[in-house]
Amino acid sequence: MADVLLEAPVGISGRHVHLSAEHFAQLFGPEAQLTKVKDLRQPGEFAAKESVTVVGPKGVLENVRIVGPIRKYTQVEISRSDSFKLGLNPPVRYSGDLEGSPGCVLVGPVGAVILDKGVIIALRHIHMHTNDAMRYGLKDKSLVSIYTNGERGLIFQNVLVRVSPNFRLEFHIDTDEANAALLQNNMYVQVLVPTNAAALSMAG
Amino acid sequence: MADVLLEAPVGISGRHVHLSAEHFAQLFGPEAQLTKVKDLRQPGEFAAKESVTVVGPKGVLENVRIVGPIRKYTQVEISRSDSFKLGLNPPVRYSGDLEGSPGCVLVGPVGAVILDKGVIIALRHIHMHTNDAMRYGLKDKSLVSIYTNGERGLIFQNVLVRVSPNFRLEFHIDTDEANAALLQNNMYVQVLVPTNAAALSMAG
Repeated sequence: MADVLLEAPVGISGRHVHLSAEHFAQLFGPEAQLTKVKDLRQPGEFAAKESVTVVGPKGVLENVRIVGPIRKYTQVEISRSDSFKLGLNPPVRYSGDLEGSPGCVLVGPVGAVILDKGVIIALRHIHMHTNDAMRYGLKDKSLVSIYTNGERGLIFQNVLVRVSPNFRLEFHIDTDEANAALLQNNMYVQVLVPTNAAALSMAG
Repeated sequence: MADVLLEAPVGISGRHVHLSAEHFAQLFGPEAQLTKVKDLRQPGEFAAKESVTVVGPKGVLENVRIVGPIRKYTQVEISRSDSFKLGLNPPVRYSGDLEGSPGCVLVGPVGAVILDKGVIIALRHIHMHTNDAMRYGLKDKSLVSIYTNGERGLIFQNVLVRVSPNFRLEFHIDTDEANAALLQNNMYVQVLVPTNAAALSMAG
C-alpha cells in the first residue's frame, strides 16, 4: 500500500434536500423560515428541523431532512438504495452539477413542487481547507485514494478533493458507502500519497 | 495498481434466510416443501418462492426470500442498512459462523420462530472451483484484493477465497457493497495478484 499523506474524519451524508427560496416558500409557506437543529462540520451548513416527502415513479421517501442554508437551486441527494425504492436512475454527481439528472416530486406541509431535474447520488469527495491542501501538495479537483481498514476494508479510488478557505477537512460519503466499509461519523480514514501524476490530474 | 490475476463475475446477495428443516416446518407447516423459483450460480443453491417476515426490536423486513436447499441451521443474512432498520448489530461473518450473533423473530404463514442467534452480515468472499484455485496459485482461505473501476471504483481488501469442487467462480457481495461500487449482477471485477506473502495468509 502507498504511504499515508494525511488522516481525515468521515462525514456520512444521509439522504437530504437543498431548497431554493422559491421552492421552500411553495412547500412551507411564504412566511416560513428554516429552523436550525444542528450545525454540520462544513461552516455555515446545518441540518434543519423541516423535512419533505420525496416521491418517485415507484415509491416514496418520507421525512427527508432539509440541509440549510437556502440555496440558489433545489437538489435532492439520495443513495443508490433509495434510487431503487423511488424508481429513479440518478447520476453520481458533485453538488450543483444537475444537468441531465432526473426530477421528482417534493411534498411539504403547505404545497408540492414538481422538479424536472435535481436528483443525484452524491459523488464522494474530501473537503479541505486551503492551508491543508497547500501543506499536502494537493489542489482543488485533485484525485486521491482513501484507505479504510477493518474486516470490510476498502480503498476508495479517484476521490475528488475540493479546496476552499471555507472548508474543513472531511471525507464525505453516503450511507451505502459507509455501510459497505462499516464506517461511522468521525472515524478517521487515511488519504494515500498519490502514486503517480495521473492521480493528481483534473477531474472530469 | 497490482497486476490482474483473473476476472470474476459479481453475484449480489440481497437479504435472505436459510432455514433448518425444523424451523421450516414450524413456519410453513409439517407437509410444506420449498418451491424452487430460480437456480443460483453456486450449484444446488436456489431462490425459493417462499418468504418470511424478519422482526427485530426496532423494525420489520417483509418478504425476505428463503434460499434453498434446507440447511442444518437457520441463518438470516441482512445488510448493514437492514440492521439499522431492525435495531440489531450483527457481526460480519462467513456463512455458518453464528456464535455470538444476535437472534430475531421469523414469522411465516403457519407459525413463528424465536431465534437466539443466526443474524449476520455476510462477509464478502469469492467462490472458486478447485481447478481455478490451483491454476492461479490460491488456496481455500487465501485473501485477495479485488478491483472495480468506474466513478465509484473501489479496491476491496482482504477478500476471503473459498475453494471447493462444488463451487463456481463468483465474487459474492451484499447490496450495500454493490451500491457503494455501482456494481450489478454478472459485471466482472478484477482479482489482483497478491503483492506479498501476507495477502496469502490464512483468514481468521
